[in-house]
Amino acid sequence: MAARAGAIVSTRDAPDDGEALERFQRVRALSLALAANLSDADATAQSMPDASPAKWHLAHTTWFFETFVLRDHVPGYDIFDARWPFLFNSYYEAEGARMARPSRGLLTRPSLDEARAYRAHVERALEEAWADLPQAARDLVELGCHHEEQHQELLLTDILHLFAQNPLAPAVWPAPPRRFGTAPDPIRWIAGRSGRVEIGHDGEGFAFDCEGPRHSVWLAPHALADRVITNGEWRAFIDGGGYTTASHWLSDGWAWVRENGIEAPAYWRRGEDGGWTERFGLDGQHPMDLAAPVRHVSYYEADAYAHWAGARLPTEAEWESAAQAHDPTDGAFLDTAQAVRPLPPTPGSGLRQMFGDVWEWTQSAYLPYPGFRAAEGAVGEYNGKFMSGQFVLRGGSCATPRGHARASYRNFFYPHQRWQFTGVRLAKDL
Amino acid sequence: MAARAGAIVSTRDAPDDGEALERFQRVRALSLALAANLSDADATAQSMPDASPAKWHLAHTTWFFETFVLRDHVPGYDIFDARWPFLFNSYYEAEGARMARPSRGLLTRPSLDEARAYRAHVERALEEAWADLPQAARDLVELGCHHEEQHQELLLTDILHLFAQNPLAPAVWPAPPRRFGTAPDPIRWIAGRSGRVEIGHDGEGFAFDCEGPRHSVWLAPHALADRVITNGEWRAFIDGGGYTTASHWLSDGWAWVRENGIEAPAYWRRGEDGGWTERFGLDGQHPMDLAAPVRHVSYYEADAYAHWAGARLPTEAEWESAAQAHDPTDGAFLDTAQAVRPLPPTPGSGLRQMFGDVWEWTQSAYLPYPGFRAAEGAVGEYNGKFMSGQFVLRGGSCATPRGHARASYRNFFYPHQRWQFTGVRLAKDL
Amino acid sequence: MAARAGAIVSTRDAPDDGEALERFQRVRALSLALAANLSDADATAQSMPDASPAKWHLAHTTWFFETFVLRDHVPGYDIFDARWPFLFNSYYEAEGARMARPSRGLLTRPSLDEARAYRAHVERALEEAWADLPQAARDLVELGCHHEEQHQELLLTDILHLFAQNPLAPAVWPAPPRRFGTAPDPIRWIAGRSGRVEIGHDGEGFAFDCEGPRHSVWLAPHALADRVITNGEWRAFIDGGGYTTASHWLSDGWAWVRENGIEAPAYWRRGEDGGWTERFGLDGQHPMDLAAPVRHVSYYEADAYAHWAGARLPTEAEWESAAQAHDPTDGAFLDTAQAVRPLPPTPGSGLRQMFGDVWEWTQSAYLPYPGFRAAEGAVGEYNGKFMSGQFVLRGGSCATPRGHARASYRNFFYPHQRWQFTGVRLAKDL
Amino acid sequence: MAARAGAIVSTRDAPDDGEALERFQRVRALSLALAANLSDADATAQSMPDASPAKWHLAHTTWFFETFVLRDHVPGYDIFDARWPFLFNSYYEAEGARMARPSRGLLTRPSLDEARAYRAHVERALEEAWADLPQAARDLVELGCHHEEQHQELLLTDILHLFAQNPLAPAVWPAPPRRFGTAPDPIRWIAGRSGRVEIGHDGEGFAFDCEGPRHSVWLAPHALADRVITNGEWRAFIDGGGYTTASHWLSDGWAWVRENGIEAPAYWRRGEDGGWTERFGLDGQHPMDLAAPVRHVSYYEADAYAHWAGARLPTEAEWESAAQAHDPTDGAFLDTAQAVRPLPPTPGSGLRQMFGDVWEWTQSAYLPYPGFRAAEGAVGEYNGKFMSGQFVLRGGSCATPRGHARASYRNFFYPHQRWQFTGVRLAKDL
Repeated sequence: MAARAGAIVSTRDAPDDGEALERFQRVRALSLALAANLSDADATAQSMPDASPAKWHLAHTTWFFETFVLRDHVPGYDIFDARWPFLFNSYYEAEGARMARPSRGLLTRPSLDEARAYRAHVERALEEAWADLPQAARDLVELGCHHEEQHQELLLTDILHLFAQNPLAPAVWPAPPRRFGTAPDPIRWIAGRSGRVEIGHDGEGFAFDCEGPRHSVWLAPHALADRVITNGEWRAFIDGGGYTTASHWLSDGWAWVRENGIEAPAYWRRGEDGGWTERFGLDGQHPMDLAAPVRHVSYYEADAYAHWAGARLPTEAEWESAAQAHDPTDGAFLDTAQAVRPLPPTPGSGLRQMFGDVWEWTQSAYLPYPGFRAAEGAVGEYNGKFMSGQFVLRGGSCATPRGHARASYRNFFYPHQRWQFTGVRLAKDL
Repeated sequence: MAARAGAIVSTRDAPDDGEALERFQRVRALSLALAANLSDADATAQSMPDASPAKWHLAHTTWFFETFVLRDHVPGYDIFDARWPFLFNSYYEAEGARMARPSRGLLTRPSLDEARAYRAHVERALEEAWADLPQAARDLVELGCHHEEQHQELLLTDILHLFAQNPLAPAVWPAPPRRFGTAPDPIRWIAGRSGRVEIGHDGEGFAFDCEGPRHSVWLAPHALADRVITNGEWRAFIDGGGYTTASHWLSDGWAWVRENGIEAPAYWRRGEDGGWTERFGLDGQHPMDLAAPVRHVSYYEADAYAHWAGARLPTEAEWESAAQAHDPTDGAFLDTAQAVRPLPPTPGSGLRQMFGDVWEWTQSAYLPYPGFRAAEGAVGEYNGKFMSGQFVLRGGSCATPRGHARASYRNFFYPHQRWQFTGVRLAKDL
Repeated sequence: MAARAGAIVSTRDAPDDGEALERFQRVRALSLALAANLSDADATAQSMPDASPAKWHLAHTTWFFETFVLRDHVPGYDIFDARWPFLFNSYYEAEGARMARPSRGLLTRPSLDEARAYRAHVERALEEAWADLPQAARDLVELGCHHEEQHQELLLTDILHLFAQNPLAPAVWPAPPRRFGTAPDPIRWIAGRSGRVEIGHDGEGFAFDCEGPRHSVWLAPHALADRVITNGEWRAFIDGGGYTTASHWLSDGWAWVRENGIEAPAYWRRGEDGGWTERFGLDGQHPMDLAAPVRHVSYYEADAYAHWAGARLPTEAEWESAAQAHDPTDGAFLDTAQAVRPLPPTPGSGLRQMFGDVWEWTQSAYLPYPGFRAAEGAVGEYNGKFMSGQFVLRGGSCATPRGHARASYRNFFYPHQRWQFTGVRLAKDL
Repeated sequence: MAARAGAIVSTRDAPDDGEALERFQRVRALSLALAANLSDADATAQSMPDASPAKWHLAHTTWFFETFVLRDHVPGYDIFDARWPFLFNSYYEAEGARMARPSRGLLTRPSLDEARAYRAHVERALEEAWADLPQAARDLVELGCHHEEQHQELLLTDILHLFAQNPLAPAVWPAPPRRFGTAPDPIRWIAGRSGRVEIGHDGEGFAFDCEGPRHSVWLAPHALADRVITNGEWRAFIDGGGYTTASHWLSDGWAWVRENGIEAPAYWRRGEDGGWTERFGLDGQHPMDLAAPVRHVSYYEADAYAHWAGARLPTEAEWESAAQAHDPTDGAFLDTAQAVRPLPPTPGSGLRQMFGDVWEWTQSAYLPYPGFRAAEGAVGEYNGKFMSGQFVLRGGSCATPRGHARASYRNFFYPHQRWQFTGVRLAKDL
């Protein structure tokens, strides 16, 4: 999702004080670690309007804590620099004017080191104020941690996009090519629940406002693929004329393919023989693992693939009702600062790769659930206002911090966007 | 709708032969009548890429019958002019190359009279072939009639858009200003059915493929407004800062407002005192009837209005389940060639204006129903491929030919489009 | 030229009364004749922002007489329609607001017939007022005639551009393909005058303000080609890699080639064998005459050709000093309404094709002569304000009314424009 | 000028060996000094397509020496990094593929420090090879020094443009506001030479190819203003409606003003009272010195000012013939790394400020002189190919390295560009 914080729906299960502060510190430390290999210039550049500089992510997440916790709840707190909120507010209209998004890459000052000093300053102030923070402020700290986790994923994908523009193909975390996995067995179809099912956040623990209310939907008989599509399968799609056959594509998708000369997923590279044998990643350019999940595909591509395969994409309700039985912390997630990547499925029966690896496009538009009401005020200004034109993705990816995703979690992007770790799970009617 | 013909789902109730031919002739005659006041130039110009020239509508609908009925089912039929299919194919990829859509307005040849001759030629050929047409071809004739009805509506809205660009404010059908209606009573809320309901085409009579399959959905408790929003109510929205308050708007909608300097519905005009007191229509520029339904609003505007009013837009399932009890031919529809307009609601209790008057934006994205499969072949190439980025509208408008709409009918447009007769009915959760 | 009227520098040689009125009538009649084969739609469409509809040309030239002669000099004259000046003013800022240029093609009303009625009305009024017109007004009539002649050429080139967009390749004046000419002898170099020479209008007869003052320039030794480049020679340029070799091109020219996929002059068409063997013209599509002058090339192309040929383009002073010895009415010019075309050179020695055939690009930017001062007021608002970014062309073309061009005449266009009858004469240093 | 190196026309006055090497070292040292206050990020960002990153300037000038001197003339020299020529070639088509210009700001790697290492490496190699360099290579070293001086000026103006985008208004060289100068006396007109004069490089010392050949031109009687226009005078232009009165502007200029909302020279800033009282510079934002030359104006603005003032801009021949009597090293030029600025004129009679301070727009298009022929090969690929659409500027500016300018020096930019230190000297006809 385009990195917005959401109102806390419920924290009945709220962690006790020490845990909450510790979690804050852990989250903050991971952000720094993700940027540790970046130069000042790396952290400043912006490679497209959809992306933001790493430095901006580091400062914006700090601005969130400074504004909504320290400024609003800590008497006597002085803003670190009165000119910075203009720079590091993202899109909160209620918080006033802000730097035009496509110009973020021109902010060579403040420097990366200054942004780090800002982080340290705000962290120290928050730690000192912690004991006296009212519960509302602590809820905002928790919200801020989830918000920062969203930006950790974006920081990774935005840096990946930037480095992909560089003819030198630099690696954030250099690594030798991994050994290739074994091509998984053909897809098996796992029937889902049909009839009346409940989806949406059930009120236990943290969730963003758009995940609720919990409500009933009626599902027709259907099945989900037991795993996500691999690079090898995608290559068969290419070889089968996937990108050159209009009838597989949505009308908007076909226009997108033609206007942009799309021939393959983002970051696929041609090898010396001209074939699609390499891919670029956070570890630089390496041979492609055909057994690993395909990543960096747009909704248009996902939908075209499904059409070509004689299947369709799942709805978000089908996906969520199936995912409720799975552990949302189990899968290839972001744990430490390294070149994350989705993994081939482990052998086994039943649904695999539901969490982690790649965000799975659903054929559901991102729209409000019955009874949804956006929270009031600046903090509440984000999920609701994006409810047009975007599609829901589910399950988290290898770049999502472990523990951030859950069955009810709704990520969303425009159908042409593909710089996230996005992949495909098929579904079909029964 | 972007004017596409859909596969016939079912014609169990098919009209007998004589009726079917008569209906064909009636539909064809109405198209001609709609264009009767147009000059050759009027019928040729294209005022924006979304719109098509009237001449093009007249020829394209004819091309449909010529191609899918005469060419495919009448042995020995000669194409009227072998170069015209390139000009008058719309978007059927399977039918080959075609004129770039935004350049249609440069086709000053063939002339309007030649297009009329083409119509007459194809009509005569079809009438002569009628007795020997196989049922599949007759089904295509029925489909072609529905297809042409869609284009009749587009012909009206496209001409309206063209004439609106002309500083002389010409009228297609000059008319004196009508007497104003009486402002209707405040909105009353009519509770809808909740729990499991069935929607989608039930298999009786003609329907486009995207209207089915019939299927269950689960509805939460809700209510619909008993009528649509009026011009007077919309003026209160403007006066209340509707177009200048970011918090009412979707993020994409707010960007659209700012980039395009949007201040009011399309075709609203300022009177001599600078206020929004006039509107442009097929009858030229006249004072606005505050009691009449607001028309020519985008989804963004409809959604912002609902937010401002503390309500929301209905889902298509809510709308359809309510509409099933209403007569789809009862309302302000297109019957004859004249300056159509939506009417103030007639007094009464219960839901009014469900059919006709204005297309009602729903908050449902245009997506496939469970079990939907697009038909194969060129004729089937249209509804399915538009299923991204668009919203569903329901109920038909004053520019929709009477008999064309039904409870299951799904129209769809992008959220910024507003050159159709589009309006707003509110809904709320109970 | 972007069709602007210029101030009269001098009319010492002014025609006597009867001749002046007759000339007015002749000019007006030719405009009508040029549009005689156009339908209402043909005359209304605008195929690009640089071009204007034929109807607009007919009405704008009439607006010029109505405004600057009848309105300003004929007491009691009533404007034909008070709303029309907004529609038919071109770019005279001093004359107030006007229709946005790229939207001229949406003016389906008034019709072509109404535009003709406007012409007749203004002509009648001017003829009736003629006897009492003060000399200042008669000077404006003369200016208006020259202005209208400029628009006659634009009317032809704009219609040609419009018809070229139509896949049916319609002809304005259908004609069989002409017999091909004989390839002319190789270019001979004719030395020009060097040292101090005088150029610029000398004050005899009509001229636009930018043609003066007459002044001295110093010319280095040089020679001009005795004729213009032919289609056959241009084909050798193509075959020699002209359009694919960066080193022949100006930097802006090379960018233009790449962005627009330029491969050949405008209106060249590939024949059945894929070669450049056909061209589109006012007489439709026909085989290309290799002996005829190449036409419809941009400055970028002209300059690249010259570089490829080891030569350069002439300066306007070189051209003018050579042209002073030639009869400016002798050459392939526009005399009657027909499919004009440049002709192969007639055998002979010395400079040929200096006047008529094709406008010859010079390497001179369009800039003011020493002592130039634009005339005051709306009528004077045209030549001076275009003095940036454009190059001068000399000599007139087959679409220029005979008698309109002269040795000092300065036409000008942007270096990428090529919808006029533009060609190439080479020059070289001695 | 868009920073291109030109062929050496002549070095009859060539410095002896020691001096030439010393000059090389001095030029190289100044480039480093100019970038000394820049962070890695400052040196990497690109604020518009016309500008380049400082790091790129440092590396590109080095690439020039590496390619044309070391690679071509030093046996056994190994390219520093084989992948870098692709990155740091600018526009030499003959040298092969290169990074797309607008994407230079995405090259966060190599770092600024690596670019500095590249510089040191090439300098060392060149110093070591010096003794054995053939004269052709030494000429290229001299050319490379002039080339690097051009980039020094661009480095300053590009960094200024970048910093101007930053809401923090950072200074490259912080400095307190200077004391204001005294408003100079009104302009005095100094008559220039008329009749036949010689301009163009005379063959003594270094010059770029476009400065020659020396040739005669014929000048009409004219005068030049004795000094350039001040900020104070420009403010009178603004107060007099300069930016809101169409009749002062070229047609393209007026369109530029309207589309871009131009109201004042670049980098002018409004003070607290809303007036144009401040300006941004390499020393940050400070009050404006009304006595200092106006800077950062486009050709369109310069021409409009001249029109408003009842004057015109000089031609390049007028300027050069007057400048021949002046010392081209005398004036406000770049000597050391500091916040350069143009200065108020010193009291005195005769022409002042001819060299240094601000580049002076002439009304001459940048075109070839009689007899001009671009040099062959990659090194010669630059001046000639820019000869369309640009205007000549003369005299150098406060950001031009002292000694770089001369009377025959031709700088050139597009008429809308104004990020250089560009100003205005008036001229008039006598």
